[in-house]
Amino acid sequence: MKTSSRGQVDPFIVMDIAQAAAEAEAEGRPVIHMEIGQPGTGAPRGALDGLSRDMSDGPLGYSVALGIPELRRRIAHHYGTEYDVDLDPARVVITAGASGAFILAFSALFDTGARVGLGEPCYPSYRQILKALDLVPVGIPTTLDTRMQPVARDVSGHALDGLLVASPANPTGTMLGHAELTALSDACLETDTSLISDEIYHGLTYGARATSALEVTDEVYVINSFSKYFSMTGWRVGWMVVPPDHVRIVERLAQNLFICPPHASQRLALHAFDCREELDANVAVYAENRRLMLEELPKAGFRDLAPPDGAFYIYADVSDFTDDALAFSHEILEVAGVAVTPGIDFDPERGRQWLRFSYAQSTDAIREGLRRLTKFMDDRKREAAE
Amino acid sequence: MKTSSRGQVDPFIVMDIAQAAAEAEAEGRPVIHMEIGQPGTGAPRGALDGLSRDMSDGPLGYSVALGIPELRRRIAHHYGTEYDVDLDPARVVITAGASGAFILAFSALFDTGARVGLGEPCYPSYRQILKALDLVPVGIPTTLDTRMQPVARDVSGHALDGLLVASPANPTGTMLGHAELTALSDACLETDTSLISDEIYHGLTYGARATSALEVTDEVYVINSFSKYFSMTGWRVGWMVVPPDHVRIVERLAQNLFICPPHASQRLALHAFDCREELDANVAVYAENRRLMLEELPKAGFRDLAPPDGAFYIYADVSDFTDDALAFSHEILEVAGVAVTPGIDFDPERGRQWLRFSYAQSTDAIREGLRRLTKFMDDRKREAAE
Repeated sequence: MKTSSRGQVDPFIVMDIAQAAAEAEAEGRPVIHMEIGQPGTGAPRGALDGLSRDMSDGPLGYSVALGIPELRRRIAHHYGTEYDVDLDPARVVITAGASGAFILAFSALFDTGARVGLGEPCYPSYRQILKALDLVPVGIPTTLDTRMQPVARDVSGHALDGLLVASPANPTGTMLGHAELTALSDACLETDTSLISDEIYHGLTYGARATSALEVTDEVYVINSFSKYFSMTGWRVGWMVVPPDHVRIVERLAQNLFICPPHASQRLALHAFDCREELDANVAVYAENRRLMLEELPKAGFRDLAPPDGAFYIYADVSDFTDDALAFSHEILEVAGVAVTPGIDFDPERGRQWLRFSYAQSTDAIREGLRRLTKFMDDRKREAAE
Repeated sequence: MKTSSRGQVDPFIVMDIAQAAAEAEAEGRPVIHMEIGQPGTGAPRGALDGLSRDMSDGPLGYSVALGIPELRRRIAHHYGTEYDVDLDPARVVITAGASGAFILAFSALFDTGARVGLGEPCYPSYRQILKALDLVPVGIPTTLDTRMQPVARDVSGHALDGLLVASPANPTGTMLGHAELTALSDACLETDTSLISDEIYHGLTYGARATSALEVTDEVYVINSFSKYFSMTGWRVGWMVVPPDHVRIVERLAQNLFICPPHASQRLALHAFDCREELDANVAVYAENRRLMLEELPKAGFRDLAPPDGAFYIYADVSDFTDDALAFSHEILEVAGVAVTPGIDFDPERGRQWLRFSYAQSTDAIREGLRRLTKFMDDRKREAAE
């Protein structure tokens, strides 16, 4: 049987590292996981208890395609309390994770061949989902002087049909402020470019809160998820806010492409809004991990870091040490027993000189990982000096 | 913001009926639901208990993209015991429901503009998912003399890139036997047409068991789900079996498009395999409902039925009564208080003369629905005679 061209998406190179880490562990060599993009914690305990009750109470069959109304209202309310944005619950679409939201957004907005801009480095699946839908990902190289984020002049410069931004971003953790988002939104409106804002790492910030694109414009698709702050990765539930006149289009697509998001996960998400104390305690752990990382990584020799505004990542320029981040990652895993992610999945060319460190695991693990990384770099320096 | 052409999929006309039924119920007029395409039951009790334990034991974060290995093995084993097919678990892909499987299958197999044949009548979302992916659904009108299923000569006659068959089918309940599947598979191989077999209603049969396309060929994508026999609609978990050389392609697409299927739902599905007694008791209810339907519908005047081999539907030719099945459905709802589905979602043209009755609810509800339908048709005959 033939396969399609659109289906020939790139493999994740990080899988190489994950595989090597699994093999090391199988051989009895414990690995510190700084490659993982998900919380070490599960869903909040109180939310799980709530779901257990719901599982006794009813069959949890199909929900309506846009999601259970209580959850849509709760999310709209959240925009009021967190962002001072008055949001009509009718514009909130519950999705099968942020992944489901991207499929819906791209299908609703773009026809075959449309050009969608991505600030590089970025989450690698953006590119692959676009490709699978026969759309054209347009990489926009970003630099440290714009916090590795795209800027207004990039919009007109690349003849785009759409622009996808992320703040806080993966892999960098950098954010777009109110002024930057406004400038991007204005540039998109002027050029009839559809703006999509990935806000999946909102809630994971360590100083100023993140700005939502909804504070700036209604002409945007905002995508979020219960996977990161709400610590519910495996439950595959997220949400999307769309312009009022797009709700019906997205509803029809959602009915046909997904029927509905997982019902139990929607119930769990609703309960999770009542578990802020546990969730904020998770964030406090990340904050401490981040403090340790920012203290120890430069001492170990990783001095050129993207501004780590939010999320649970630190993106480090390692061009002083290598032009082959994948080989360097394998070396770190083999010698130091720390799994890290080479930049190439996020930025195929320049990523050869970058590493992403995740600090989503326990503080003990992070402390041990930093000890190992420091020793690894010290030994390396000593060898170089000999 | 502009919307795409591909995103302009058709609405479900049945939503009109569902909306009218909801309004009737809000006004205090109880409705019997023969329009619903899902079991009245939830997931098996024992499986829910198993999941509750799993929820205490671990975080249920992301699984690997192809699904948890225990479940893939359990499904492969299922093909051995149920179909005498020796299946490598490596070919089993766990998906976000059959819906997720269709997105993966179509992306892996077809490029923009590819023509995919569908025997009409059929599940309406086939057409809309294809359209959203910029593929061309090609309706193949079927007739009662082929059990409303496509046949081998249809494959070459429509210049197809792919053919999607369903057995037992929705809305008809008719099945493809071993000989028919073999002929279709041979015709697909000869013409380089990719064959997809939707087997979501397997397990819901009332005489001979359904034949899997895997009994006939390995050159097929077989799609199934835990929604129907396993009674887990809202959990959004299904599976797909692909040819050995397609596993890597599908894995990469699944990693990027879905990350993974809902982890908790995968655990629940694994436990559901140990709950066959409860599930078979559900099937016994459908069997009794079906017996009542086949006894009472013809007496009421619905005599021209597609052969109801499986699933929980009866598809009735109502051309003696109407050329406008939607209006007829509204009349049945308004006068008799029974919600049924007009054929037009399944077959845009000829469906104007067909109705689908679902018997997935409780036997008491089915009995009351049949009583109402009989009275409705009797009154109608009396009025016509006056």
